[in-house]
Amino acid sequence: MQDINEIEELVKLISKLPGLGPKSAKRIVLKLINNREEILKPTANALAKLFKNVSRCRFCGTLKSNTEGCNNCENVARKFNKICVVETIGDQWSIENSNIYKGYFHILGGTVSSAGQRKEDLLINSLVERVKRDKIEEVIIATSATVEGMTTAYYIKDSLKGINVKVSKLAHGLPVGGEIENLDDGTLFSAFKNRNGVGNNAD
Amino acid sequence: MQDINEIEELVKLISKLPGLGPKSAKRIVLKLINNREEILKPTANALAKLFKNVSRCRFCGTLKSNTEGCNNCENVARKFNKICVVETIGDQWSIENSNIYKGYFHILGGTVSSAGQRKEDLLINSLVERVKRDKIEEVIIATSATVEGMTTAYYIKDSLKGINVKVSKLAHGLPVGGEIENLDDGTLFSAFKNRNGVGNNAD
Repeated sequence: MQDINEIEELVKLISKLPGLGPKSAKRIVLKLINNREEILKPTANALAKLFKNVSRCRFCGTLKSNTEGCNNCENVARKFNKICVVETIGDQWSIENSNIYKGYFHILGGTVSSAGQRKEDLLINSLVERVKRDKIEEVIIATSATVEGMTTAYYIKDSLKGINVKVSKLAHGLPVGGEIENLDDGTLFSAFKNRNGVGNNAD
Repeated sequence: MQDINEIEELVKLISKLPGLGPKSAKRIVLKLINNREEILKPTANALAKLFKNVSRCRFCGTLKSNTEGCNNCENVARKFNKICVVETIGDQWSIENSNIYKGYFHILGGTVSSAGQRKEDLLINSLVERVKRDKIEEVIIATSATVEGMTTAYYIKDSLKGINVKVSKLAHGLPVGGEIENLDDGTLFSAFKNRNGVGNNAD
């Protein structure tokens, strides 16, 4: 590779992206260089626009275009009575993609016990405010099934104490397609504890 | 995924890069968003700088920084008597990485019979000019072993006719690690035709 600073700098940055290493970063830079007008220029512009125009809403934590209001916590046209609380934007996207849930989101931005994460940095106070303000009927806590996620769920439930709202969390149990033989004890325990009736013959 | 134009546009562009599809593009955009200051901003700047500052030299085809002269065909401090002719910048990088060759490069920008590629668009005239101007002693043609690459090699050899310069091309034969059983007829034919003496007992 030629010793041109601009190229080396970009290869280094692209290598930091998920799933990419120095070799694939070089291939990407090569593709960009070979398609100056078709890919390089629009990608440079799109990244600059993303940086300038998109940021997390300070109130609900979801992404919003800086040129408009937040369409998750401000838009009155969309009316739901549920809020789904997740840790990250990636979690929100996964749930949205599954088309299972229709309602508002609230993104904490981490968990209570994440390294260096203070409770005050998580958007829990604004969650409580939203629940009161928008007359929310159900808060669905969708934090991860990790120690940190479960601690956070407990903390949220605690913060909502005294407010007239139903608080639920995602079920634990067998993942679809999961084989009993390969499950860990924690999952098996949850699956037994939360077992459901089968058809009419509830056990 | 939220319906924010900036994000959708960027996902589409990143999906076009080699080895990436819509899913990995989303993961990359998520990583960029979650690291605004550390990755998103510097990457946006690096791409803008690459677009502004780096372009192909019109004479020898290699990449050059727009703020300096071309260090492949203008820099007099580096003195070689060989030029290696390749099709693309990627080819140059591969040869440079192997550390086998020390000398000038000349990048054609394609092959004679590439779809839509006209002979005039390839930097063959400037190659002839360079060979004369810089008193080059050997031109090593390192085009691909495809029909297009070989046609181009022939065309270059023809263009250099009448000039006092040695013209060579890369050897054809067994790739290192290649098993005879799995080789195609063309490669086997070349390997037989170009067979070498073994030690002192030349055959």
